[in-house]
Amino acid sequence: MPNTFLNNLNWRFATKKFDPKKKISAKNLDQILKAIQLTPSSYGLQPYHIIVVTDQKLKDKIKKYSFLQSQVSDCSHLLIFCTRTDLKKRINDYIDLVSDGNKLKKINLQGFKLMTMTQVGKLKTPEALTWSAKQTYLALGFAMAACAELKIDSCPMEGFMPKQVDKLLKLPTYLKSVVLLPIGYRAQGPEHPKFRYPKNDLFSQK
Amino acid sequence: MPNTFLNNLNWRFATKKFDPKKKISAKNLDQILKAIQLTPSSYGLQPYHIIVVTDQKLKDKIKKYSFLQSQVSDCSHLLIFCTRTDLKKRINDYIDLVSDGNKLKKINLQGFKLMTMTQVGKLKTPEALTWSAKQTYLALGFAMAACAELKIDSCPMEGFMPKQVDKLLKLPTYLKSVVLLPIGYRAQGPEHPKFRYPKNDLFSQK
Repeated sequence: MPNTFLNNLNWRFATKKFDPKKKISAKNLDQILKAIQLTPSSYGLQPYHIIVVTDQKLKDKIKKYSFLQSQVSDCSHLLIFCTRTDLKKRINDYIDLVSDGNKLKKINLQGFKLMTMTQVGKLKTPEALTWSAKQTYLALGFAMAACAELKIDSCPMEGFMPKQVDKLLKLPTYLKSVVLLPIGYRAQGPEHPKFRYPKNDLFSQK
Repeated sequence: MPNTFLNNLNWRFATKKFDPKKKISAKNLDQILKAIQLTPSSYGLQPYHIIVVTDQKLKDKIKKYSFLQSQVSDCSHLLIFCTRTDLKKRINDYIDLVSDGNKLKKINLQGFKLMTMTQVGKLKTPEALTWSAKQTYLALGFAMAACAELKIDSCPMEGFMPKQVDKLLKLPTYLKSVVLLPIGYRAQGPEHPKFRYPKNDLFSQK
């Protein structure tokens, strides 16, 4: 089967049982992280941080806060997607990194700064979290797409206790875990055939 | 350059100027919609609806509610991603579609029904919108990824007036537009080099 996006999407499924002995290579992990890095985001602010967990003891502890779902401990790598709420700092960092010490470039970015500070920099924590979480899900999706191309399995999980995980990881207050992505290799195939809502449910034309 | 996910992500950029004469073929559009349909979502509920606009007059009207950004009218197809808030109905529809008249299958889905009704079916509108919007962004990402594989350009846009667009489209109350995706063909290349935050900003290992 050709390695197309649609074939890869048909191949993948939310893998519940991972083979704990099969590990993702450093080269493949690098490609997955590159795809996350290249994910587009609103204003390019990438308001997230991803913690890549391989420490078995830590995975076992997180499993306890994930309703004992085995994929958290049996996966090769556990990606913890965290959203950022420090959007003002995020905007300033963006400008510093893009201008890279060039004063003219920095001046040219003042329009961007004004716009982004007005649109998202002023958001208070609950709204900032909502906005950042949406961008984070773009990165989550691209991680799953990158995995599928490499025939690596993944299982996106909202079912965990974020506050407990944040405390366990000693996250700074501007980071909040929002979704987990265990990745690795399936121990068995899907238990059910893939279901999707039909096209006439999902789309209309105008 | 091989047609890999990473190469495609490097190729793409948020296209501001589309060539209004170049249209996406029906075959390519079908592939993009299939990728959206195959996007994973929490509990498989796909709580979104995508309106595919080709009518030029309608695109021009939506441009007025999008701060006159030309990509809305010059694109080949304008995808309007709407989130659903009717999650109870969504769960019931899921069960009806998966069981397809088979009573035993329907009984077997009662555990799923109880769980999803408790976890998301009970969400009130603001929380339902937040939850559904995150799933919608997964679909948005997969649409962009599908476009990039086909060398079709796209420009995700949060900068529009959703209430006015919902009214113009006469959307039912359970649908809210959250993000636009004009797709088509670039009239010119990117204006700036691609910027992404560095890996040590985006990732940490444990």
